[in-house]
Amino acid sequence: MTTLYGYFRSSAAYRVRIALNLKGLDHDQIPVNLVKGEQRGDDHLMRNPQGLVPSLVLDDSAVVNQSLAICEYLDEVHPEPALLPVNALERARVRALAQSVACEIHPLNNLRVLKYLVREMGADEAAKLAWYHHWIAEGFTALEAMLSNDPSSGDLCHGDTPTLADICLVPQVYNAERFECDLSAYPTIQRIAANCRTLPAFQKAAPQAQADAS
Amino acid sequence: MTTLYGYFRSSAAYRVRIALNLKGLDHDQIPVNLVKGEQRGDDHLMRNPQGLVPSLVLDDSAVVNQSLAICEYLDEVHPEPALLPVNALERARVRALAQSVACEIHPLNNLRVLKYLVREMGADEAAKLAWYHHWIAEGFTALEAMLSNDPSSGDLCHGDTPTLADICLVPQVYNAERFECDLSAYPTIQRIAANCRTLPAFQKAAPQAQADAS
Repeated sequence: MTTLYGYFRSSAAYRVRIALNLKGLDHDQIPVNLVKGEQRGDDHLMRNPQGLVPSLVLDDSAVVNQSLAICEYLDEVHPEPALLPVNALERARVRALAQSVACEIHPLNNLRVLKYLVREMGADEAAKLAWYHHWIAEGFTALEAMLSNDPSSGDLCHGDTPTLADICLVPQVYNAERFECDLSAYPTIQRIAANCRTLPAFQKAAPQAQADAS
Repeated sequence: MTTLYGYFRSSAAYRVRIALNLKGLDHDQIPVNLVKGEQRGDDHLMRNPQGLVPSLVLDDSAVVNQSLAICEYLDEVHPEPALLPVNALERARVRALAQSVACEIHPLNNLRVLKYLVREMGADEAAKLAWYHHWIAEGFTALEAMLSNDPSSGDLCHGDTPTLADICLVPQVYNAERFECDLSAYPTIQRIAANCRTLPAFQKAAPQAQADAS
């Protein structure tokens, strides 16, 4: 059985849960508790030398790491329903939207970074929150423009069916809400996230629906 | 003519220059001076609402943003020489290596982040450098393990021909050297970067070889 090593609140694991659900792929889930530091244990480092989640372990024990690489792998091996359009330029748009979250927002706001700010740079709670909100505002302002100025956007990020862009967007919106960011300036992001959240694949993948949710 | 909007020292633009060179694609280059803030000008924001480089503008004026999305686009439209292996699991390995740079190291150490640390969090030069070195050490320790523990690594990151992984690795090594990181603990990374640097596509893409180098 394919096994996903993740953590209920990990935005990157959340992406892969959505992709697995969209593809309708049976899988086990094993939690790696990031708050307890289990990602730094020898077991997990064997699987993922980066000490990050998610890791997807296949039936034959092969391991795939990095959430976007995992999603693209799933899309190549299980093509239906497709997570990327057929046309190369449209695929590039969807990947760019996904990367505007995965390469520009999320890396700055994940747990290990927030911990470094507090422990090594002496950031207090207000400075930590200001940092968080700053990168959400930078990233979401750009993403809102990318989505609202382009007729390829539909009910979802690209047309009306879920793509890799939605898979990245929804976990980032969840995180922004958790850190109480004001999202009123991003109506298109809010609309698309709300549409995604009506879909069972997204609902089943939500952090609060996971066995390790606390 | 295809036009790359970049900046000589931008690690993300450097990736796309390597990809264009590997593919042997004729293109113009127009510099966007990040130090002068030209990426925040209206002209560039029209092209790239993220206010980042690179942007690739195609013959028909279509714009592709985000360096990894641009590289995958080029690979789909100009398949030879391939930047990704044929096998899905190998493709996932190459993408994961690329993303271990593009999603875990580079986002933390780029110019806008260093500026925020100094201006908003009062980081002094030593704290800024410690931050920089910390994320290089975290990222390169993992990447060294991913490369040295896997028989798929060859003269380059995956076998002996350049892939998306090498395209990301070399600019990150360049940046680490520029910030005087000690790379002695990463012999595989150093070996592969040195091998890449013997190739004309990488040499022509190097920051110091660009018209806007200063």
